[in-house]
Amino acid sequence: MKRIAIDMDDVLADAEGRFFELAKLRYGLDINPIDLHDKTWAQAANVPHEEIWAWLFEEDFFRKMKVKPHSQEVVKKLSNKYEIFIVSAAVEFPQSMKEKLDWLHEFFPFIDWKYVVFCGHKYMIKADYLIDDHQKNLATFTGKPILYSAYHNKNVKGYTRVEDWKEVEKLLL
Amino acid sequence: MKRIAIDMDDVLADAEGRFFELAKLRYGLDINPIDLHDKTWAQAANVPHEEIWAWLFEEDFFRKMKVKPHSQEVVKKLSNKYEIFIVSAAVEFPQSMKEKLDWLHEFFPFIDWKYVVFCGHKYMIKADYLIDDHQKNLATFTGKPILYSAYHNKNVKGYTRVEDWKEVEKLLL
Repeated sequence: MKRIAIDMDDVLADAEGRFFELAKLRYGLDINPIDLHDKTWAQAANVPHEEIWAWLFEEDFFRKMKVKPHSQEVVKKLSNKYEIFIVSAAVEFPQSMKEKLDWLHEFFPFIDWKYVVFCGHKYMIKADYLIDDHQKNLATFTGKPILYSAYHNKNVKGYTRVEDWKEVEKLLL
Repeated sequence: MKRIAIDMDDVLADAEGRFFELAKLRYGLDINPIDLHDKTWAQAANVPHEEIWAWLFEEDFFRKMKVKPHSQEVVKKLSNKYEIFIVSAAVEFPQSMKEKLDWLHEFFPFIDWKYVVFCGHKYMIKADYLIDDHQKNLATFTGKPILYSAYHNKNVKGYTRVEDWKEVEKLLL
């Protein structure tokens, strides 16, 4: 059975949507998605980096992300044919890990805790596929990398790109 | 550079020592280490499994473990020759992960968060060596497994066994 490693933020969970929501709530900004192309959230909102960075350590920042459309049904289908591991670089945000487990338990209750990995680097994960939105993770991965589209990676070239979970389904099922 | 994956509980951190300490404090028991051979903590203390299991979800259970003798100096030396990843099956105990990071920060401050992995299964970790006290992790590991002696694994056969960190040093340096 082939193994797929799946990232969380901006792949299963709508991290950019959470940013748009808080940028509106806190700064009254309607961020244009194009402003995230090759930019950090702080650059897009035109506020100091430290200010946005602090969000990532706030209670419920990760817990309240919305689930990406069709991710639940497609991951469920994939799990019949592949071994699924959720691999999130969450160790940087210690308080996020329990929230991420609670979030997975709510939206992906069929994924057992033994198949959840919180890490920093991902290059030591042995899998056939990695679905991730960050080039740094895909570039060093030893299996087949799949770039999950996000506004921030629109200009990244050289990877198999999927726009949404329906495209993942077509690609892998 | 070869890569070593190192477990935490009963390898870097004295988990059995924490059990002895709490068995004394809570039940007045002086556990004989031999009583842990092939037994669970609950069996060794002769109390219901659920009672000891609940300890693992208590605040500070993991944070207050002592560091294993010579582990700090030997891991530091190893880190000059090998790439070191800390790989702990901590996802089962969601509250433990922050404590384990704080513990690592105190005792192994030279290990960057990017090299810490919290997981369930370990067989998808790609490394040249795994130092672990549990046969279930070693048996499925694709590199060279090294059994770190603990009272609970005294009867496990078929692995390169190290009794302490000085023996790890001899073996790998």
